[in-house]
Amino acid sequence: MLKKINHLGVAVKSLDETIPFYRDALGMTLQGTEEVADQKVRVAFLSVGESKIELLEPTSPESPVAKFIEKNGPGIHHVAYEVADIEAAIAALVASGARMIDEKPRKGAHGAQIAFVHPKSSNGVLTEICQCSECGH
Amino acid sequence: MLKKINHLGVAVKSLDETIPFYRDALGMTLQGTEEVADQKVRVAFLSVGESKIELLEPTSPESPVAKFIEKNGPGIHHVAYEVADIEAAIAALVASGARMIDEKPRKGAHGAQIAFVHPKSSNGVLTEICQCSECGH
Repeated sequence: MLKKINHLGVAVKSLDETIPFYRDALGMTLQGTEEVADQKVRVAFLSVGESKIELLEPTSPESPVAKFIEKNGPGIHHVAYEVADIEAAIAALVASGARMIDEKPRKGAHGAQIAFVHPKSSNGVLTEICQCSECGH
Repeated sequence: MLKKINHLGVAVKSLDETIPFYRDALGMTLQGTEEVADQKVRVAFLSVGESKIELLEPTSPESPVAKFIEKNGPGIHHVAYEVADIEAAIAALVASGARMIDEKPRKGAHGAQIAFVHPKSSNGVLTEICQCSECGH
């Protein structure tokens, strides 16, 4: 069902202060930045193998990512697995007894379709599935 | 410098209670389990694309993973990037100003050589680099 780890979401206080570690110290390629107004975050994508690191900087104290940082400090926020068919993947998860935050796909960065599994069903790991057939990555 | 995400380390209270989500609900292949006495953990590996999920169950309250769970609850513990030459990777990290927990590689699961970057240098994300040329994965 899963093709690969599409990305690892990392909550950061500042993109500008965090990008140098990933780009310069680890040598990843910075693919670009984007604002996701819906989630009140600025996002930077860096590539590593078939996956990406997605740095998430809150643009408002109301952002879920700002609340995460307030509670936990900066760190890994979620993991996203790429699937070929997100509707089928949600159906399979629900059939196996998993609780979803999103029972219908919604729109994420780059026009991907995304859905989150409830952390109760994934042992505390915020888990996203995404279908990226139209978003070019 | 980095070839790929080798694995994502996830701290869990119980392998038996966590494996079904990854194997049955997400459909990953369980590759096996192993005890890493040094870290006082039992580890289960599940594959996804070119990467793996490494579930870490503490075997003692003294385990670093037990302490992580006590503080944060179960969740993503670290990310490990695979490199071709770990000594060169450590040298490059140090040259770029990163602080290492391990300035010399030590032995991890499957006989891999591993080293951790200090979370101070990686914005709160416990970051491992590993060289796996002899460990067959």
